[in-house]
Amino acid sequence: MEFAYSPKVLDLQAQVTDFLNTKIMPAEAVHREQAGEHGPWAQPPILEELKIQARARGLWNLFLPGEGGAGLTNLEYAPLAEISGRSPMLLPEAMNCSAPDTGNMEVLVHFATPAIKERWLTPLLAGEIRSAYSMTEPDVASSDANNIRTEITEEGDGFRIKGRKWWSSGAMSPRCQILVVMGLSAPNGERHKRHTMIAVPMQTPGVNVLRSTSVFGFSDGSHGGHAEIDFDVWVPRDHLLGELHGGFAIAQARLGPGRIHHAMRLIGMAERAFDIMCERAYTRFPFGKALAEQGVFQDWVAEARIRIEQARLLVLKTAWLMDTVGNRGAAVEISAIKVSTPQMAAWVIDRAIQTCGGAGVSQDFPLAEMYAQARMLSLADGPDEVHKMALARRELRRYAPST
Amino acid sequence: MEFAYSPKVLDLQAQVTDFLNTKIMPAEAVHREQAGEHGPWAQPPILEELKIQARARGLWNLFLPGEGGAGLTNLEYAPLAEISGRSPMLLPEAMNCSAPDTGNMEVLVHFATPAIKERWLTPLLAGEIRSAYSMTEPDVASSDANNIRTEITEEGDGFRIKGRKWWSSGAMSPRCQILVVMGLSAPNGERHKRHTMIAVPMQTPGVNVLRSTSVFGFSDGSHGGHAEIDFDVWVPRDHLLGELHGGFAIAQARLGPGRIHHAMRLIGMAERAFDIMCERAYTRFPFGKALAEQGVFQDWVAEARIRIEQARLLVLKTAWLMDTVGNRGAAVEISAIKVSTPQMAAWVIDRAIQTCGGAGVSQDFPLAEMYAQARMLSLADGPDEVHKMALARRELRRYAPST
Amino acid sequence: MEFAYSPKVLDLQAQVTDFLNTKIMPAEAVHREQAGEHGPWAQPPILEELKIQARARGLWNLFLPGEGGAGLTNLEYAPLAEISGRSPMLLPEAMNCSAPDTGNMEVLVHFATPAIKERWLTPLLAGEIRSAYSMTEPDVASSDANNIRTEITEEGDGFRIKGRKWWSSGAMSPRCQILVVMGLSAPNGERHKRHTMIAVPMQTPGVNVLRSTSVFGFSDGSHGGHAEIDFDVWVPRDHLLGELHGGFAIAQARLGPGRIHHAMRLIGMAERAFDIMCERAYTRFPFGKALAEQGVFQDWVAEARIRIEQARLLVLKTAWLMDTVGNRGAAVEISAIKVSTPQMAAWVIDRAIQTCGGAGVSQDFPLAEMYAQARMLSLADGPDEVHKMALARRELRRYAPST
Amino acid sequence: MEFAYSPKVLDLQAQVTDFLNTKIMPAEAVHREQAGEHGPWAQPPILEELKIQARARGLWNLFLPGEGGAGLTNLEYAPLAEISGRSPMLLPEAMNCSAPDTGNMEVLVHFATPAIKERWLTPLLAGEIRSAYSMTEPDVASSDANNIRTEITEEGDGFRIKGRKWWSSGAMSPRCQILVVMGLSAPNGERHKRHTMIAVPMQTPGVNVLRSTSVFGFSDGSHGGHAEIDFDVWVPRDHLLGELHGGFAIAQARLGPGRIHHAMRLIGMAERAFDIMCERAYTRFPFGKALAEQGVFQDWVAEARIRIEQARLLVLKTAWLMDTVGNRGAAVEISAIKVSTPQMAAWVIDRAIQTCGGAGVSQDFPLAEMYAQARMLSLADGPDEVHKMALARRELRRYAPST
Repeated sequence: MEFAYSPKVLDLQAQVTDFLNTKIMPAEAVHREQAGEHGPWAQPPILEELKIQARARGLWNLFLPGEGGAGLTNLEYAPLAEISGRSPMLLPEAMNCSAPDTGNMEVLVHFATPAIKERWLTPLLAGEIRSAYSMTEPDVASSDANNIRTEITEEGDGFRIKGRKWWSSGAMSPRCQILVVMGLSAPNGERHKRHTMIAVPMQTPGVNVLRSTSVFGFSDGSHGGHAEIDFDVWVPRDHLLGELHGGFAIAQARLGPGRIHHAMRLIGMAERAFDIMCERAYTRFPFGKALAEQGVFQDWVAEARIRIEQARLLVLKTAWLMDTVGNRGAAVEISAIKVSTPQMAAWVIDRAIQTCGGAGVSQDFPLAEMYAQARMLSLADGPDEVHKMALARRELRRYAPST
Repeated sequence: MEFAYSPKVLDLQAQVTDFLNTKIMPAEAVHREQAGEHGPWAQPPILEELKIQARARGLWNLFLPGEGGAGLTNLEYAPLAEISGRSPMLLPEAMNCSAPDTGNMEVLVHFATPAIKERWLTPLLAGEIRSAYSMTEPDVASSDANNIRTEITEEGDGFRIKGRKWWSSGAMSPRCQILVVMGLSAPNGERHKRHTMIAVPMQTPGVNVLRSTSVFGFSDGSHGGHAEIDFDVWVPRDHLLGELHGGFAIAQARLGPGRIHHAMRLIGMAERAFDIMCERAYTRFPFGKALAEQGVFQDWVAEARIRIEQARLLVLKTAWLMDTVGNRGAAVEISAIKVSTPQMAAWVIDRAIQTCGGAGVSQDFPLAEMYAQARMLSLADGPDEVHKMALARRELRRYAPST
Repeated sequence: MEFAYSPKVLDLQAQVTDFLNTKIMPAEAVHREQAGEHGPWAQPPILEELKIQARARGLWNLFLPGEGGAGLTNLEYAPLAEISGRSPMLLPEAMNCSAPDTGNMEVLVHFATPAIKERWLTPLLAGEIRSAYSMTEPDVASSDANNIRTEITEEGDGFRIKGRKWWSSGAMSPRCQILVVMGLSAPNGERHKRHTMIAVPMQTPGVNVLRSTSVFGFSDGSHGGHAEIDFDVWVPRDHLLGELHGGFAIAQARLGPGRIHHAMRLIGMAERAFDIMCERAYTRFPFGKALAEQGVFQDWVAEARIRIEQARLLVLKTAWLMDTVGNRGAAVEISAIKVSTPQMAAWVIDRAIQTCGGAGVSQDFPLAEMYAQARMLSLADGPDEVHKMALARRELRRYAPST
Repeated sequence: MEFAYSPKVLDLQAQVTDFLNTKIMPAEAVHREQAGEHGPWAQPPILEELKIQARARGLWNLFLPGEGGAGLTNLEYAPLAEISGRSPMLLPEAMNCSAPDTGNMEVLVHFATPAIKERWLTPLLAGEIRSAYSMTEPDVASSDANNIRTEITEEGDGFRIKGRKWWSSGAMSPRCQILVVMGLSAPNGERHKRHTMIAVPMQTPGVNVLRSTSVFGFSDGSHGGHAEIDFDVWVPRDHLLGELHGGFAIAQARLGPGRIHHAMRLIGMAERAFDIMCERAYTRFPFGKALAEQGVFQDWVAEARIRIEQARLLVLKTAWLMDTVGNRGAAVEISAIKVSTPQMAAWVIDRAIQTCGGAGVSQDFPLAEMYAQARMLSLADGPDEVHKMALARRELRRYAPST
């Protein structure tokens, strides 16, 4: 047991932190201003510049373990994802490490045909285009993946996809060119062998973006927004990702690292909120004493520090488990961090908001938008309750009387 | 001790509820659509229609105890304010009972000269214009009113007002024509005798609206938005509200009923969220059983019901105390509801969001915007911590050793 | 709607408070000392003296609405039960208003034959003996009354009762002479028509007290302790309480007022804890400043005050509902206070413990024992979860789609 | 970074677990029975047998890093302390690893003269006697060590110690023979150079044990109880521990490892409670379904698992920090675990109590006593609030504006 980061990680942390401090933080105000001018989902020019700089520094596709990526383990990448969470609207995308593209790229690496890779993975890895993930549906309880009912049927030498999706993250970006879509291909197949994952180019006739949905009052541009989409499209057979009816397993495989990434970015957000509240507390003097010296505020600081440290350690251990025993062996821990990190981050950010007063809920701080993201992550990919139930059932098995 | 509403209140509740159910609820979707077209702070046409209907039904200015109002006590108005909170973006304004106008109208009724009343109060009472309240300042800890430093100085036969305000609620509305401004007029005066309240017409040269601030991504159009304003203006002497250097007392007087109104609207919001979560729970079937039959969800329902009932009773008792022993005698209770109702409402709304999944944070339900309003009210008019401190000190007095 | 206590209640409150302050509080230390000498369940001599004094003052059997009692409504008695909770180990019993005797006396008043009343109710009303309530069983989930399986069968001109009970509150007292026992008499009867309630004199052959169970480390002498009892007894037919197979309804009827009493005593306990923590805070000066002036402590004071006030109002409203619309009409509220008041009280008492440091968990304050009682009441008469479920289902009915 | 235990630790864990499962768990009932017969603080015979067995297995004095101990690091001992917490009333003492003896032995090893070591440390290491720690005083806010005022003055060739202590843990044990006492020796010395630590044999004339104090009704026999003691004694100069006026540093040094030990035992208690609640949930069927299958219960299971895992990791990291950078470098983490582990354990144990119903608060499960211990540890060695304040101030330093 050893809690020190490896020299390799320490070096990468230093590099990403330097990029954060010298390039990203000064760019945040510019980004906010440009986003106001260019609209919620367009890529502001400053971001393109930052991408060039990140790539020049070798801080690019760090999330990707193998081919085309940085070759880092989950345990090595996690601390870098954390740093990227300190500027969540800028740094992940600047390093080409933003959701939902990271998960989509992983799926394409492992499950796409060479032609599809050439056509869509290459520009994604180069940060030239973005992608979307289309799983959730408006009419069913999406917490249970078995409810998904968009139809995928064989038609000619390809597949027809018909159905309605929403919360298709990424699809509002004008730079989004490819969708990863999950649908029901074998309604009567055995459980977990009913769904298929398929790549659908954005320009395919029949991809009809109806509207965007907001998160609290935000359009969530850094994730490319969230689209409601009507699908009635045909794509050639080679757009199939992995096996026919093998979509469930791909979705599961996609989620493991994704949860580490989300969790570590949340820890970064919490640290950013912690910085903001501590700095602010030296500039405000209600009732004659700096907030930093007031008992209730100090109580929040201590609570925040305790919660952040505990959450980080559990996420890191989960990353280590995924690296050493795989997603299956880390199932309890993956569920655990899925539940606990968004709640932790939401709590810390909420206290930072309270510390900043009105400024805290406004656009003058990233707090309200970070809160919306953290809160959303107690819902996205299944609400907390589903993951707690799964975790509990797995734990309880050990105690079930043998019958 | 008697917990039944009076016949008069029961009758008014029935009337407001009927208006809510038959006119307001069906108009919500229209309002949302029109708001999208007309911009965040414009008054959508549907609202004007609803105002006409409300007025025709006699559901108008119910908040105002005396002259020009409905003559209701706090205890009589509170249950009506609650109902208005069930459609917080529409019903308060439709009945001309929305913040910050209610507080401003009360101030004008009690402290304005006849000329000012004629010019500004009359159209406000008629719902023809809106008003703003300018108290908070960006550079000081506004939780402590003594920190306010916008200067009010005598100049010729009037006053010059110089300073920067923000969170001037109402001032983004194109229909806003009058500002109630608080400033520092006697920096060396005794505590609570330093500030002055003054009416400033929006069109006065030197009122410079710099920008709006958002609340969790929302522009808060139903309150007329929140403006940052630079003031360098002169107004004639008769724009003074009440006594010179008597602003603090006016601010305090303004807050008492305001807190009842906010608190009761929050209870209405919580009831609306409760409806939404209970209805939703019969339409979603994760893992083969309606959400309504699942244990964790039922636990939220019970918790929500308990919290709502307890909060409502305390607010009603506070209203009763204000009616019978006045603001001063109700000081502990006013602080208590200032702290407890926003937290209660935020909790209930948050559980409703969780119940609705992605839909809950989106524009498809009023939940995210209601959450933003409830959360904001743990900050506005002083953060919870200040009110808890005040409450505690008042309680502790009883135990202080006599020295 | 009217929140003032009636003159009658104000007068009774003054009388009980005077008795508390002048007689009970000074007796607490004596009582503790005598309890140490006489053993956990014996009645210390001081208590007998206090009973005489209470009776002389007319503060006797206040709980009993009709025959032999004070004729108070629930709403009138509740504020007096609250005061008795401020000295929970002494005052309820001193006024002959302690559990489980109050509930048992009510059952006997309504359901016993004249002979049984003469033999057992009369001395109970006179405070000469105590009684026990035998419902819970060790081998089943007692949260669900339908699980109770102690057998009651007709035998000769009477009934045989066979089974094991525990948590028979009151039965460890050497003064306990009568047990109210619930058993299964019609295993195949329709739900809620299967159980019978019966009076069993303590001296009946076959009543075998096996041991006592503790509550945290306390023997709970003020409730007469809790006994595990093996029953194999025969009692004559006239010991039947109410109808054969009608026990469930009696148990329900017994619970309504019992919950008001428990809830109000809990509020009294919370007020006592509040007093203790506030007084203590002026006597301790960690880090150079009285605890009373420290922010975190003040936060607890405010929270405690808010929680106590809200809980009290809900209990009072529940009492009012029971008086006006009956137990059935108050079902949601009865469940609500069953859940919320023990949690409220436990929280306030816990903060008082934390304020007092080591002294708080010791015998030097009543806090630890009050905590144990409050915590126990989240379990007794069904755990919180059962009552929340019942409450939620009742609420959800309003939203169930008509089928 | 590496989360696997070392082979050495895995081997020791297996040994201690085997001892727990085969010897300790079957002895718990015997121990409880014997404790009832022999009185609260006597050592029941079964414990002496277990000590012999533990020693024979080499599971003895594992806590002690150097001379006479097992030579384990904090990181190596911590997981063993955790296992001992699963049977907190038996296993720590059986392995001669129970508080307050462990801390006292460490103090004697490092700061006692050879004669004192020979006389008292040798039998302590052999488990032949027990010891007590006398620090807290009844009349001052002990959360602030600077308040301690028991006088230590030079007198002849030794020291006189005069004052009143309470919560002298260990001193109620009839086997206690030596006290480690902290007193004020230089009232006007510089802060942290005012106090002295000294060894006082229990039999010294003038050691007057006045009474014991209880913890939630428990006598806390496994820690040797808690005594209030009046001191007016003289001891020879060689009873001085470390430097004159150097007591504060010794107290600090004593606390570091002590907090790790307490924290890990708390995690063991939480795991024990987790076992109990999960096992129980398969034996109770309220409303027709095993508790193990009910949603609210599963929610507790998931929450408990998450909280336990997070707390354990933070304690292990703290142990690692103490081993690698020392107490000072681990100051934030030591404060953090001091606060978070008792709260975590209290929460888990409380949910286990709720799961077990009445049995949970009774002597039939160790839950109520474990709750009392966990709750006590939010107070002992300074209440949570003091440690949070210290933690927060240390964190805030990084943000303080340079002046």
